[in-house]
Amino acid sequence: MIKEIKIEDLSPEAFIDEKVEEISAAVGDGAAINALSGGVDSSTVTLLGHRALGERLTTCFIDNGIMRRDEPEQVVSLFEDFGVHVEVIDAREEFFAALAGITDPEEKREAITQTFYRDVFGRLVRESDARFLLQGTILTDVDETVAGIKRQHNVFQQLGIDPEEAFGYRIIEPLVQIRKDGVRRVAEALGLPESVWNRMPFPGPALAARVIGEVTPERIEVVRTATAITEQELAHVDAFLKLAILHEDRVTGMRAGQRDFGLQIELRCWDSVDAREGTPTQLAWGTLRRLADRLAAEVPGVVSVTYNLATKPPSTLEAI
Amino acid sequence: MIKEIKIEDLSPEAFIDEKVEEISAAVGDGAAINALSGGVDSSTVTLLGHRALGERLTTCFIDNGIMRRDEPEQVVSLFEDFGVHVEVIDAREEFFAALAGITDPEEKREAITQTFYRDVFGRLVRESDARFLLQGTILTDVDETVAGIKRQHNVFQQLGIDPEEAFGYRIIEPLVQIRKDGVRRVAEALGLPESVWNRMPFPGPALAARVIGEVTPERIEVVRTATAITEQELAHVDAFLKLAILHEDRVTGMRAGQRDFGLQIELRCWDSVDAREGTPTQLAWGTLRRLADRLAAEVPGVVSVTYNLATKPPSTLEAI
Repeated sequence: MIKEIKIEDLSPEAFIDEKVEEISAAVGDGAAINALSGGVDSSTVTLLGHRALGERLTTCFIDNGIMRRDEPEQVVSLFEDFGVHVEVIDAREEFFAALAGITDPEEKREAITQTFYRDVFGRLVRESDARFLLQGTILTDVDETVAGIKRQHNVFQQLGIDPEEAFGYRIIEPLVQIRKDGVRRVAEALGLPESVWNRMPFPGPALAARVIGEVTPERIEVVRTATAITEQELAHVDAFLKLAILHEDRVTGMRAGQRDFGLQIELRCWDSVDAREGTPTQLAWGTLRRLADRLAAEVPGVVSVTYNLATKPPSTLEAI
Repeated sequence: MIKEIKIEDLSPEAFIDEKVEEISAAVGDGAAINALSGGVDSSTVTLLGHRALGERLTTCFIDNGIMRRDEPEQVVSLFEDFGVHVEVIDAREEFFAALAGITDPEEKREAITQTFYRDVFGRLVRESDARFLLQGTILTDVDETVAGIKRQHNVFQQLGIDPEEAFGYRIIEPLVQIRKDGVRRVAEALGLPESVWNRMPFPGPALAARVIGEVTPERIEVVRTATAITEQELAHVDAFLKLAILHEDRVTGMRAGQRDFGLQIELRCWDSVDAREGTPTQLAWGTLRRLADRLAAEVPGVVSVTYNLATKPPSTLEAI
């Protein structure tokens, strides 16, 4: 149904012009809304939408409390440079309330999705005048779910907009004919910095995917600090993905001569082409040891640090 | 109170003669009993006792179900070579029953100690004619607990022998004037193989110390297989301690294309002089990766393998 534009047939500039026109034509003198996560897909859609609609596009960054350090500020400041105002929605309490007491990884994922669509973004859409929703869906997303009308219908249902009313809404997916490699080229052509178009993959459930067991503000803060240190110490390493995971298991440690059941951080650094298979990156021993010492010294409660040695499969890249 | 024999003043042969005579004199024509774990202290005491008392010493190896692979058989066969018959007591069910449902590390340790002293070894002592108990206590053990008569009293109380009756029993501790380095010299002089006198430290709670969370026969079997593979693959590595730990946390894995929440094994290999401080051993990357691949392939349910990078402190050598 959807006509793919292969990477070898993609002219980023022509693609941008075409999509900007399509968005303009679709929205007319109406208003549109989109959610920006800071990832390459939603960043690209935001700039395409802004070129087409200017102030008639409302772009929301939903601060769910489980992003990396300074991520909301960095996204806002990056888009300010493009003249795009980003509305930051502080939804931290709602997300943590939804995650309280949940330890099952699938239930965690579901709680985050539900809170995002039905509660937070759904409310923003319902309360706005916008009847057009810009989404960063790419062709790979479509392959992975069901195609066509049913999928669009589902989005509005997810947003808490009833099927009758949903006929008044329309979804616009400017990236649906291309894949990740195409999006990166378009993002670069739009002038987005390499930190966006070549960004390490980051999971939908954000840092919640890197906390084994219950997700609380305190546990997110631990993994957030560990992630910042890990990304900093491994900035010079060319790898597909670098991550720090907070375990639920407690292990024995010593602090000031006293036994102390402390926290364990697991590090993973992956060599991979497309995330389907992966091999742990061979890091220098000095790099690993220095990183472990910093984590133990700078992250409150951490007494143990490990490095992943398993391949995918049988492991996966993320821990949950 | 106890007169230390410093390592520089120790003549292993003279020490052996002296202790054999002391044991003979103390026991007279009575009978003695001891528990052999296979460690250097209890192995040394067993040979000293056997030299002094021959068949009047009953040596028991208590199979608690949480030893390493083939450990009971290896201990029995080693002592057979010395003409010492070792009684193997199958207490696996009692230990696993005592450990069922316990996840707290201190409670686990306590359950193992109680089952050993009060239930299993206590019953053996009470049911035997022996009134002399040979123990491998070394001076460091004494330093770490309370000294003198009170400690001996505690042992019998631990064994379920009431204080009145305990006056009929006597404890003999031939190694109490020396420390680990002295015991190793004496063990070597007694003809014990290097695998005994230079054995890697192994914790009292055995493999139960290497299972985070509940200790069950199935979970012990996982860590036992992992330990066998780890000791085999790292046999060429000169390190103070090499261990494999089974985590309670489950992490996502892939088996035959399906998501599978699997087990994680953590490897630790320590450089250390005396266990008071430790640094992770810098192993060759190929060694680590090969070991991880074997663990994922050969230990049922394992999808993830990590290597410890933290020093002691703030970590400890063992995980619980």
